[in-house]
Amino acid sequence: MQVVGSMTDWIKLRSESLFHNKSIGFVPTMGYLHQGHLSLMRKAREQNDLVVASIYVNPTQFVPGEDFEHYPRDEKRDLAMLEAEGVDYVITPSDQDIYPNGFSTYIEPPAASQGWCGDARPGHFRGVCTIISILFNLVRPDRVYLGRKDAQQSVVIRSMINDFRFPVEIVVCPIIREPDGLAMSSRNVYLSPEERKKALVLHDTLELGIQQYKAEKRCAADIISQGKQQIQKIDGVRLDYLGIVEQNRFTPVDIAQSGNFYIGAIYLGKTRLIDNLVFGQGGN
Amino acid sequence: MQVVGSMTDWIKLRSESLFHNKSIGFVPTMGYLHQGHLSLMRKAREQNDLVVASIYVNPTQFVPGEDFEHYPRDEKRDLAMLEAEGVDYVITPSDQDIYPNGFSTYIEPPAASQGWCGDARPGHFRGVCTIISILFNLVRPDRVYLGRKDAQQSVVIRSMINDFRFPVEIVVCPIIREPDGLAMSSRNVYLSPEERKKALVLHDTLELGIQQYKAEKRCAADIISQGKQQIQKIDGVRLDYLGIVEQNRFTPVDIAQSGNFYIGAIYLGKTRLIDNLVFGQGGN
Repeated sequence: MQVVGSMTDWIKLRSESLFHNKSIGFVPTMGYLHQGHLSLMRKAREQNDLVVASIYVNPTQFVPGEDFEHYPRDEKRDLAMLEAEGVDYVITPSDQDIYPNGFSTYIEPPAASQGWCGDARPGHFRGVCTIISILFNLVRPDRVYLGRKDAQQSVVIRSMINDFRFPVEIVVCPIIREPDGLAMSSRNVYLSPEERKKALVLHDTLELGIQQYKAEKRCAADIISQGKQQIQKIDGVRLDYLGIVEQNRFTPVDIAQSGNFYIGAIYLGKTRLIDNLVFGQGGN
Repeated sequence: MQVVGSMTDWIKLRSESLFHNKSIGFVPTMGYLHQGHLSLMRKAREQNDLVVASIYVNPTQFVPGEDFEHYPRDEKRDLAMLEAEGVDYVITPSDQDIYPNGFSTYIEPPAASQGWCGDARPGHFRGVCTIISILFNLVRPDRVYLGRKDAQQSVVIRSMINDFRFPVEIVVCPIIREPDGLAMSSRNVYLSPEERKKALVLHDTLELGIQQYKAEKRCAADIISQGKQQIQKIDGVRLDYLGIVEQNRFTPVDIAQSGNFYIGAIYLGKTRLIDNLVFGQGGN
């Protein structure tokens, strides 16, 4: 496994013949890897000749006041994990590499970026789309691997790929969960033991919705209303949103249908967690 | 020469082995070709294994009230001219191909898009950057060829390429002029015989600035002020702007230096014409 910190070096390397006529799977990450990330590496390893991962905590996707400075970082551990998964190249750009002085071009993200996390984190998807575009141009992958935990992100990136005709196939992989159902997230490390227990209400609430769907109760307003009640019962948990959305445009639906996402976001103290399940496809 | 109207067909063709390990020169145009365009085709032909041109009148770079509907079109003539220049592929996408229903991702253009044509045509560079990004992803060229007549456009696109790390080299080619000095433009066809004569004041004014520079008069405000007087003398010509700008950021300078652009835009009736010369490098 080769770790490349300078994007000038990477661009030079990427133009070499060892990349010619090889399929490239790309997994963009912000590091502090968990089993969710590793499942993406494995899928990329299965489907491509070469696997490229990136570790970059992208400042432009954090909203002022968020956790950019404190976002967990442990590059040494991350690199050991990537090496064990058989990743071929890891790029670890610096902020100066990605956003040099005078940088001023951004992506105006697609319609699917509106609402939900787009409301809670204004500018977040602009930053996500911008860094993904830059990484696509640097890596020039055949396939990109994303986790479905960030469901809106995957829909936004798919829209951008389609609109901008990036020659990249998007592969969205299932959510990887802790044994009790909590979706794995680098931000789970922020949770106190007490918060960690309470955090489970998000998955339990989404799971309740899936059960209602299976019992033919498909009115979105009813499912969401019962979900909100369940979350509001837990002291110290603040609801950001619960919603049922169409899977390609991320717009709300009235009646839950197979393939729709049941999405939720909560705050525990300063920690914001998101999760989702899919109706009619076994949930996760 | 192969003409490809469907982008689905083009994407399929572009993935074929005949493009492997071949350098690709790309010339994006809005058609109604003149010698300026053809000089770009020749440069691309010289420097690349394959030359791809596009003909597409991009609606998103026209501001409401501009000449999108009436922009001159003559595809048959254009294709004959491209064939004569030895172009290999011409893509002629439809609006539905480029902007299908639901299209909603755009480029927020770099700082160099502010002022000048950016003021006169709000949203213009957003449209330019968006279509160029899409075309870059469709064509995946090694080099793109642009004319220096649209000086701000070439600076904006260079900034976008640098910021977004498009693996594309930009080649900006000299302005091609009519024998009397008028910069060639598809929009010159709009001019009445009388307007055509008056239009020359733009080039003459810029040329006067170059002469002043050669005579060591380099105060930008003075050069511009004399230029404005010269333009205002001509009945029926309305000045949009005259400016002297730094060549990488397109910001105004106080003292003209070698490499700076002397830029101007005028209206003759509804027709808007732009032109520029470069200080200290023989002008054009």
